[in-house]
This record gives sequence, structure tokens and C-alpha cells, in this order.
Amino acid sequence: MSESEVPRIDGRTPDQLRPVTLERGWSKHAEGSVLVSFGDTRVLCTASVTEGVPRWRKGSGTGWVTAEYSMLPRSTNTRGDREAVRGKIGGRTHEISRLIGRSLRAVVDFKALGENTIVLDCDVLQADGGTRTAAITGAYAALADAIDWAQRKKLVRAKAQPLTGAVSAVSVGIIGGVPMLDLCYEEDVRAETDMNVVCTDDGRFVEVQGTAEGVPFARTELNELLDLAVQGCARLDDAQRAALAAE
Amino acid sequence: MSESEVPRIDGRTPDQLRPVTLERGWSKHAEGSVLVSFGDTRVLCTASVTEGVPRWRKGSGTGWVTAEYSMLPRSTNTRGDREAVRGKIGGRTHEISRLIGRSLRAVVDFKALGENTIVLDCDVLQADGGTRTAAITGAYAALADAIDWAQRKKLVRAKAQPLTGAVSAVSVGIIGGVPMLDLCYEEDVRAETDMNVVCTDDGRFVEVQGTAEGVPFARTELNELLDLAVQGCARLDDAQRAALAAE
Amino acid sequence: MSESEVPRIDGRTPDQLRPVTLERGWSKHAEGSVLVSFGDTRVLCTASVTEGVPRWRKGSGTGWVTAEYSMLPRSTNTRGDREAVRGKIGGRTHEISRLIGRSLRAVVDFKALGENTIVLDCDVLQADGGTRTAAITGAYAALADAIDWAQRKKLVRAKAQPLTGAVSAVSVGIIGGVPMLDLCYEEDVRAETDMNVVCTDDGRFVEVQGTAEGVPFARTELNELLDLAVQGCARLDDAQRAALAAE
Amino acid sequence: MSESEVPRIDGRTPDQLRPVTLERGWSKHAEGSVLVSFGDTRVLCTASVTEGVPRWRKGSGTGWVTAEYSMLPRSTNTRGDREAVRGKIGGRTHEISRLIGRSLRAVVDFKALGENTIVLDCDVLQADGGTRTAAITGAYAALADAIDWAQRKKLVRAKAQPLTGAVSAVSVGIIGGVPMLDLCYEEDVRAETDMNVVCTDDGRFVEVQGTAEGVPFARTELNELLDLAVQGCARLDDAQRAALAAE
Amino acid sequence: MSESEVPRIDGRTPDQLRPVTLERGWSKHAEGSVLVSFGDTRVLCTASVTEGVPRWRKGSGTGWVTAEYSMLPRSTNTRGDREAVRGKIGGRTHEISRLIGRSLRAVVDFKALGENTIVLDCDVLQADGGTRTAAITGAYAALADAIDWAQRKKLVRAKAQPLTGAVSAVSVGIIGGVPMLDLCYEEDVRAETDMNVVCTDDGRFVEVQGTAEGVPFARTELNELLDLAVQGCARLDDAQRAALAAE
Amino acid sequence: MSESEVPRIDGRTPDQLRPVTLERGWSKHAEGSVLVSFGDTRVLCTASVTEGVPRWRKGSGTGWVTAEYSMLPRSTNTRGDREAVRGKIGGRTHEISRLIGRSLRAVVDFKALGENTIVLDCDVLQADGGTRTAAITGAYAALADAIDWAQRKKLVRAKAQPLTGAVSAVSVGIIGGVPMLDLCYEEDVRAETDMNVVCTDDGRFVEVQGTAEGVPFARTELNELLDLAVQGCARLDDAQRAALAAE
Repeated sequence: MSESEVPRIDGRTPDQLRPVTLERGWSKHAEGSVLVSFGDTRVLCTASVTEGVPRWRKGSGTGWVTAEYSMLPRSTNTRGDREAVRGKIGGRTHEISRLIGRSLRAVVDFKALGENTIVLDCDVLQADGGTRTAAITGAYAALADAIDWAQRKKLVRAKAQPLTGAVSAVSVGIIGGVPMLDLCYEEDVRAETDMNVVCTDDGRFVEVQGTAEGVPFARTELNELLDLAVQGCARLDDAQRAALAAE
Repeated sequence: MSESEVPRIDGRTPDQLRPVTLERGWSKHAEGSVLVSFGDTRVLCTASVTEGVPRWRKGSGTGWVTAEYSMLPRSTNTRGDREAVRGKIGGRTHEISRLIGRSLRAVVDFKALGENTIVLDCDVLQADGGTRTAAITGAYAALADAIDWAQRKKLVRAKAQPLTGAVSAVSVGIIGGVPMLDLCYEEDVRAETDMNVVCTDDGRFVEVQGTAEGVPFARTELNELLDLAVQGCARLDDAQRAALAAE
Repeated sequence: MSESEVPRIDGRTPDQLRPVTLERGWSKHAEGSVLVSFGDTRVLCTASVTEGVPRWRKGSGTGWVTAEYSMLPRSTNTRGDREAVRGKIGGRTHEISRLIGRSLRAVVDFKALGENTIVLDCDVLQADGGTRTAAITGAYAALADAIDWAQRKKLVRAKAQPLTGAVSAVSVGIIGGVPMLDLCYEEDVRAETDMNVVCTDDGRFVEVQGTAEGVPFARTELNELLDLAVQGCARLDDAQRAALAAE
Repeated sequence: MSESEVPRIDGRTPDQLRPVTLERGWSKHAEGSVLVSFGDTRVLCTASVTEGVPRWRKGSGTGWVTAEYSMLPRSTNTRGDREAVRGKIGGRTHEISRLIGRSLRAVVDFKALGENTIVLDCDVLQADGGTRTAAITGAYAALADAIDWAQRKKLVRAKAQPLTGAVSAVSVGIIGGVPMLDLCYEEDVRAETDMNVVCTDDGRFVEVQGTAEGVPFARTELNELLDLAVQGCARLDDAQRAALAAE
Repeated sequence: MSESEVPRIDGRTPDQLRPVTLERGWSKHAEGSVLVSFGDTRVLCTASVTEGVPRWRKGSGTGWVTAEYSMLPRSTNTRGDREAVRGKIGGRTHEISRLIGRSLRAVVDFKALGENTIVLDCDVLQADGGTRTAAITGAYAALADAIDWAQRKKLVRAKAQPLTGAVSAVSVGIIGGVPMLDLCYEEDVRAETDMNVVCTDDGRFVEVQGTAEGVPFARTELNELLDLAVQGCARLDDAQRAALAAE
Repeated sequence: MSESEVPRIDGRTPDQLRPVTLERGWSKHAEGSVLVSFGDTRVLCTASVTEGVPRWRKGSGTGWVTAEYSMLPRSTNTRGDREAVRGKIGGRTHEISRLIGRSLRAVVDFKALGENTIVLDCDVLQADGGTRTAAITGAYAALADAIDWAQRKKLVRAKAQPLTGAVSAVSVGIIGGVPMLDLCYEEDVRAETDMNVVCTDDGRFVEVQGTAEGVPFARTELNELLDLAVQGCARLDDAQRAALAAE
């Protein structure tokens, strides 16, 4: 079956992103904040700057960046239990929080950041697939704003360049044998293979996480998915750049 | 000092509410959803309907309504720890969740609702005082929409009237000796007495919770605060009615 | 129906307290201890004094007072689970602990107390309604004894007056349309409206918490309940004064 | 050194128990309740009867008896944290709860009890050494009363004999080389060897738990301690019998 | 620099595995058990078979396979806290448990397994890098033995083929610019890029998880790493086959 | 029935130990490590040395020794839940960890150890009765190796003698009226009385824990059990001495 014959649920072509928006300054309190949407997936990303670093890093002259991801109970189709009520964080939440943190740290020069800590909170207000990739893409923009704020407040030296590049992320997957970009929830559920790719703006990889759901995937399929993901991230970089250029 | 001489931080008169908005249908998944704002306080209220009731109510022929309240970590001026990460819910969160649930149950006829459960999730996206009163006011509208949905889906009989009235809530307090309506965060911090009042649309009380912060308050002050609160709730009733009347 | 026609379960008139006792010095270890009873409700209140204050208050020159409330598993008619065994504190327990702490702090001059901390433990040995109001009333007396101890031990200056007044609490409610004072458990269950009122010995309010159980209540009913509560607290003040005057 | 030369803190001879009291019917709600004191150690023991047994015992025709031990935070000389607040039960609490349960089960005929569960709650109101042995001794009497209640209520057959004997417990220890009975807290702290012994009323052992604190103990010392303990338990049996004989 | 010039800590060539052993039947209780070692990394994998499936799968006619990973506190160079003592499972543990479960499920035909559940416990006795890949490789062999057992016990039909293939896993990474296979701990720490690859015995991928530590990696590097990993997994397949062929 | 007529499950005589092995140096990371086996019971004991002591012991010039015991989920016949997953440690685990710690501390001179802490981790790899006694016996040997290490590393003075003796432990019990040594699981389940005894190498007692399972036991039975245990521990001392003498 040729690609053109695969009707995507929302009419997109296999290599097309959903509409992407990055709304900066969504929160009046946070040093950086972005409401990011990938189609119907909406994630509120806030960046909180505090002077000082965790104990194990004190005196090192270097900063720290970390992230916490969470879904509102009714961000999904059926209501999920609150992790605070259950009294523990689930494996998936843990995994995604760690992924977001690692992805952002890949483009941070901690020496240039100095002994400051930035926490990225990524709270999913509405979920429709790709929440972790939207979170990474939005959190990068919130992080950039927070670093700007820290430089204006003289917490970070004016000439320092704490960001060594930009980072964005997208999901790809194979559905009915066809590789597709930026899966929505319904596609995600049906995908035979599911991959999340985090790229820098120079086209290199920060994370590649591919999982066979049911049937293992071949090297050629992996290559096609990576091609799609790299193109998708390039377009997300453009969106980030445009959003950050606006006043 | 006369009331007119007390300049409120945001220029309001003592008996003036902040701008109130109730944005319905904010979530594509929930059976009812309202993004409510009281000034800069913004709370996302979603209502989730499920058939059936908790075990202790099974076979009673009556339904149940409950609520969970939470603040995003950076909804406040300085970032708070996530309760899910700490592994337990704080006393304040518990207290407010219970208050919201009780307030809504006061206007529900559980017989008319039938054996259905509605959970109201009130997540504070941005906090500037009055988050619990905004939550109650918004949650009522989300509840109304969810009941409508349940009637269209035939979960609730078409002619049943599960809502026996409307409910809204507002904070009042005494600052510099002057009773004031709908305190923002900075006012709340400085208030000598702080009261949250939940009223039905016929002007009766569902909850009255007054607390002296520092100096105990006299009966006359209590009366003035109640007067203000009743007026405030009447205006919030109007806002709810207008929002629910819109298509 | 006239008030005299409403037979209370235990033969009291609507405005009558249950027998109140305050047994001081119940514990040999605690700096202050009172076994308080309101009828069959019995609460052991101990006050523990420690030098120093929590971290967030260090160096302020001011002290701190806090409280913890708990019920023994079989203090009630049917055995409840131990919160320690369940691994978390329930919302009601949290709420009442906070209420007791706030109520006592309303009559403490923290400057006069100096950098000392007093923890009030209120453990319900037997419950028959009004456990929180008995706890506040007894804890005040235990607190007074603990402050005396601290002055004898020179932790607090001899001439300091850390207590700015006395505080007591009582429940009121409407049953069958009649406002009644100091509800026992069976009355509490049947009450249409339930209110807990915390007063200082000069008749002002520290806390007013009224809740409609089922039917909202009118302003006139609220006023009648407040009248009853103020009278009840005045008599509890007398009981506290008498107990503290004894050697 | 002769025994008479060892002055015990409270003037007792080495083989003397502290004053023992067993106050039955202390709680109006519990099916059996005893406030037991061994000197200044005071433990409230309540027995709660429920029809039915835990899932793993269902359909066996046999009952179950279990126990939970806890100390009030200020039952001790310095205030301890509440286990409910810390969110977990400590090792010592666990250990003693299990010991009490095992000790009581040793004198219960579960067939005769039928499919009923009895939970013994032993809450230490004041601690001065020997809390676990006082708890076992008091809990036995509460259990006996609860079984009586169950027979009057026809939950247990009138002619059944669910109790196969009586059980009591006492601590013994070596201080300054001298074996002593029923240690108070100050003695317990100084003891070189510390042993808790649980006996039936026919002088046999249910539990023997001896621990060297510092220096290991010899077989002869062990024998002397066992002698003392057996005598002590015999006197505790008398006290139980007397208390249960009273109306 | 040519590959031959990179001296590996333990003298291996870049494309060489550490010595691999799979010791079957290590536990007398488990239905399948394998002590797997990749060099000094030693993981005890046990497979526990139970009839029936979790509630959400009941009546489906299909089985379930899940995994739990854990490290003994002193399996590592410095002692780590026990997760049971801390009272919660860390993100890394969660992540790896999920990875192992997914990897094994990729080669299981749940229809053929029938309504049986197999839990794989992978406990790291000694860690020296690659614990998760060793765990997957060993767990597969334990799973195969457990399925054999289930067939002998008639829990699974004799002719059913619950395993659709074999699965193994290996780590690869770039150190000093050179791609290397099966990193030991010291190499892992120094790696610029770190990748875990899970393959089936027909050379397809179940999971690909690559992470840049510090510097993002290029597509060509990714390709070289995948080449190495596929070769490594082929050799691990041989080791599994040899171990399972032995009696 | 004479003792010779009681066929033990594995053919042993009543006073015979199971085969005992102590495999030193099992772990490459730990300062001391022993894989101990009592028949099919296998426990990995590691000793971890760290400089410094817990806060409450700082500045005392004395060291500390503590222990943690745990069972792998499938060390037993049917798989148990992981305590880390359940989020809390069970009573039995707590109890045994405390017993092991106390037993080892009985032979440590903390002054000679200096301000160093040694943690003994005892992880049961396979359970067949007597896991706590095997753990104590193995942990002693691991502790001895760790102290040696600390002396070679100059953490402890070369001439110091931190060990004041050796310690070992064994279980005894009465089955069918016959006292028996070192019960395996099947015997343990059937025992009427079960006792764990911890002895020093000079034949004195550190701990004696006897429990009647069902029927209380008489003084004569207690004496016979103690005789058996003392003999058993003497043979375990020999095994420890032999293992520690080897290079």
C-alpha cells in the first residue's frame, strides 16, 4: 500500500506534524513558562530558577537542571488516579521525568549556568499522544526564557552562554506498515513500533527510544523512522525559534 | 478611616469582586470542564462521570459527588514540592478537597442522580488568593455540564433534577480594620480575619469558615463579613448563570 | 414546637452543656497534661515543651505552638483502622490538628514565649461527639500548665505573659429545627447544620466553622447558633479557670 | 552481695512486682476493655469483636485473634514522633504487636471461637518499663470479657470454651549482677540482661525472649531469671483472676 | 586512532563481549532460574508461574509476563539504600523493570500461554555495568525453563508454542570516539554515548535506547553502534541456545 | 518413642546440623562478604564499612554496627511481594534485622572500632528454614573480614581488638515431642515449639527467643532445647573458625 493511500485519522500525510503552538509567558509567577500544544496535546511547562544547587553539587561552580512530568487526572480519556493520592509516582511518570531532564541537560553548559538550579515542571493539561515530546519541546523554550531572566537578574553572567544549542522531540511510529510522524493517541495505540527521538538543532541525537509493540522491527524500518524524526525535529526547531524571537 | 480611603492593591472598592470568567468546555475529554478565573487565580475544573458508586453506597439507588483539589508546583510565587513526589497529601490540600466536595453535595439530589459518581478535579494553574472559592464556583458549572451530559447519555433520567440549586463561594477578610470582598494573595497575607463563605443561589449558607489570623474578631465584624460575602456570592451566581446559558 | 418539647437524648435542655471535667496532671512525663471530658467524650491532652523552634523560625526570637490530634482505633463505636498502619493520615485528622493548633496560637504571644516550641497532643480515648472542641478546651489548660513549667524552669522569662487570653470551643447544631448546644454523637449524626465555634474568654471568635448537612441554613439560624455557642464557651471558660485555680 | 543490699529505685525487693491494677470496662464502646497498670506504666487494652475472619481463613470454621500495640507520643519521657505522621510503623512497634498477638493466640481454641475475629488494641498512655508485658496481661482480661460478650450475643456458642487457659507476662533482668523482677524504665536502661517471659496459668511458657545488653549471660543466670519470671506470672494470674471475678 | 590502539580496561577488543555464563536451575523453588554473568555483573533471574492472570486480563484466554528488577544494596561499589527501607522504588528501578517486561513480552504468544502469569525477578547480586542487558538475557532463559515446566505440569498445552523467538540484550557505547560493545562499569561512566539494544534471534529490534551523555551523537555513530549491538546479540543468542540445550 | 525412631525428613539425627558452608569473598565490592548455607538455605552476607557514625553517635569516639535482612521474592516456595513495591517493610523483616544487629553488637568493642560504621546486609537467596540463624552466623564472618580490611586500611588501629568474641546462631524445636536441632522449613512448619538461640564462642547466650506454636512448653523441654542449641552453636563456631583461617 502506498503512503498516499493510508488515510490518517486527522487527514495528515505520514510526514506531517500536527499544528504546533508555543505560548510563552503563560504563568505570571514562573521565570519561564510555555503552554505548548501538538494538536490536542497541551502541556504547561514552567521553569523555576533558584540560586544554589543540590548538596552533592555544592562548591562545584556548576549548575543543575531537572524536570518533573505529570498528567492531570482528567487530561486523558478516562480519569486516572492522582499519584499524590496513591502516595507514589508510577514508573511511566518517573521515566518521562528523567527523559525530559536528560534531554534538556544535553544542551546546557553547567559551568556557564553557575551554581543555579532550574526545575522544569511539565504538567499535561490535555493528552492526545506525544505528551513527552511536546513537553521536551516546550520545556526548552521555557528554559531559554528562564535563563534570560537569570541573566537580567545577574544570577548568570551577562556574557555567559548556558545554552549550547536547542533541543526538540517528536514521536514516530509504524502503523499498517507505514512510518508516520507525530502520532496522536489513536495512532499511538495502533502503532506496531513506537519511537521517541530527541534532536538538537544541528540534527544530532540526544535520545533515541524505539520500542516494538508486538512485532520486532527491522533495521530498514528503524532507518525510515529516524529520517522522519529528524525532519520533524527540524520543523519544531523552527517553531521554537519563531516563538522565542517574538517579544 | 472610611472605606473609600483604603486603597486596595488593585484599585478595587472593598465590596468589589475581581474580574470573573468561566470558560466552559476547556477539556475535550471531560464530561464537564471549566477554566475559572478570579483575577489572576486560574483553576481548571473537570467533572468526570462514571456509572456506579463506591462500594459503601452500592444498591442504595443514590449517586455520589466528590472532589480533589491540587496546586501545580509553580502555580505559586515560589515553587512548592509536588505532593506525589513527597508521597503524601498535605493537610491543606485534604481540607480544601473535602470542602469542595461538601459544598457541591449540598445542592445535589442523590436520588435524582441515580447510581452514578461524579468526580470534580480542581487543579490550580495559577494562584493569587481565593483558589478554593474559585474552585467551588467553577466546579459547580462543570458539574452542571456533566449532569447535562449524563442526561443526554441516558445515565440520568431526562426529567430528573439532580441539582437542587446553584452554589458559589467567595472569600472575605478584614484588612486594616476594613471588611473586604474576594481577597487577592497579598491581601490575604495581611488580613487580620479571613473567611470563606459558600452560598446557594437563594442566599442561604452551605459553609461558613472564619479564622482569626492573630487577633480574634467580634460579632459585629463577623456580621459585616457575612453581608459582604452574601453580596459577592449573588454576583458569582449571575456569572455562573450567564456562562451556563451560553451555547 | 417549643424548645421544651424537644427531648434531648440525655435529657438536657437545648442550651445545656454535658458534664465537663478537666483533670490536670494526668501524665507524669508531660510538662502539662489534662484529661478532658465532655460527657462520654474523653481526650488526653499533653503539652510537650522543647527548647528551640523549627528551622524556618530560628533566630526570630519567637516561639511556636502546634498540635496533633488522633483517635484511638476503638475510641469509636466500631473500630477504625490505625492511621499508622494505613501509612497515612486522613483528611479529617489533618483538618482537626490544624484547627487545634490555630486556635491555641490565637492566644499566644510568641515574642513572650521566646524560642521555645510547645506541641499539644490530643488523643481521643473515647468519642461521643465534640472531640475537637473538647480537645481545644483541654489543650488550652495543658498549654497553660506547660507555660508555667517553662517559667519555673527559666526557659521563659518569669514576667513574660505568653498567654494573651484563654480559648475554648464548643459545637452547636440544628436538630429538628431546634438549635442545640454541645452535641453528642447521636445528635451530631442527625443534625441538619453543624457548627464548631472557638471563642476567647472575652467573647470574641477565633474560628467559626459551620456546615450544612443536607439543607443550607439561613442567616437567622446562623445567628441563633452563634448565640448558643458564645454562652457555651463562657461556661467552658469558667470550668478552665476553676481547674487551673486548683493546686 | 545479698539481695537485701541491692536497693531498688522504688524500694522493692528483687522478686517484687510493682503494684498491679486491672480496671475493666474502661471504654463504653469496646466489647472488652481494661486499663492495666504495672506501677506507672499504664496501657489501655480494648478488644473489638467482629463477625467473620480475614480472607485467608474464610470457610475454615475457625476464628482469629490479632493485636496492635502503640505508644502515645508523650507516653514517654521525651516526646516521640507519631508513627502515623512518619507514615510507617517502626520495627519495635511491629515486633511487640506480633508478640502480643502470638501470646494471646496460645490460649485460644479457634474452633470454639468460630468464625469471629477479635482485635486487641494496646495503647500505652504512660510508659515506665514493661509496656509489652503489661499489655499482654491486660489484653488477656479484655479478651476474656470480649468472649463473654460474644457468648451473650450468641456469636459464640454458650457452651464453647474458646479460652484454654490464662496468659500473663513479666519482664526480668540482671542489674549489678542481681536478677530482678518487673523492671521499671530506669532499671531496664541499666540492665545487663533483659528478658520478657510469657506464661500460662499452669506455669508453662508461651514466649521466652532474653537479650544480652552488652555482656552475654550464662546458663545459670538464665535459670535464675526464669525462676523469677515464673513466680511473677503466677502473681499476675492471681490479679487477673481477681479482676475477672469482680462484677 | 585505530580501534586496535584503544586499550580496553580489561584487554578486550572493541567488538568483544565479556565472558558470558548462564547457570540454569540455580534456585530450588522457582519454576525457572538462571544466574547470568556478563563478566563481573551477576544477576539472579527467577521465573515464577502462577495460574490465572491479573484482573484486567481475566477471561481473555491470554496470559501475562511481567518483571521486577532490583539491586542488592552492596551489589555496587558503594552501598546504596534499600528501596524497601526508603519506602519507594526509584525511577531507574522502575524504568528497568518495565524494559525487561516489555522485552520478554515481545517474544511471547499470550494466546499460546493461556491464562497463566509468569513473573521474572531479576536481582543484581554484583554490578559491573550492563545489569539490565544481562537481566534480559538471563530472564529469557529462565522464562524458557518456566514455560517448559508449565507444559510438563499441563498448565500450558503440550503443543502450544508460547515463545515466538529468543531475545537478548547488550549495551554499546562510544568512548574516546570509538564504538565499543558490552561496557563494564568503568567504561560506562566514561562513555560519551550509551545505548542498550534488545534483539530477537532473527536480528530484529525489540528496543533501542540511546542516550547522549554530554555530547549529542551523529547518525553515522548511531549506525556503528547498532552494527556492534546486532553482532553482540547474535553471540548472546548462541550462549542462550547452548545453555538451554544442556540437560 | 526414642529419638532414633524419629526419621527426620533428610535423614539427620535430632542433634545433627545440616551441611554448613561459609564461602568468603563472594562479592568483589564489599569489604567483607560471605555466602553462607545451612543445607538449602543460602544467605548472601555483605559487610560495608564507612568512616563516620550516625549523627546521634558523633564525637563519641565509638563506632556502630547495624544489619538489614531481606528475602528475594522467589527465595521461598511461593513468590512473595517485594517489600520495596509494597512500600513498607513487614514486621518479620524488621524483627530479624534488629535481631541480627543486636547479635553482632554483642561481640563488638565499639571503642576499639572507633568512629566507623559497618552495615551487614543479609539477603536470603534461597530459603529452607533457619534463614535468620544462617544470616547471623554468616554475617559474623563477613564482619570479621570487614574489620580486617579496616585495619589494613588504617581506619581502625592495627592493635585494636574490635571483636571481643565470635557469635553464631541456630534454631531448635520440638517436633512430635522430640527436641531437634537446626530445623529445615518443613520441620519448622510442624514444630510445636520453635526457638532461636544466639551464642558466643564461650558458650554464653546473646539471645534466646522461644515461641510456643500451639501448645505451651514446659521448663524441662526448654532445658533440652537449650542443651541442643549450645552444642549446635559450638559446631558453627568451628565452621566459622575454619573458614576464617583459610586464605
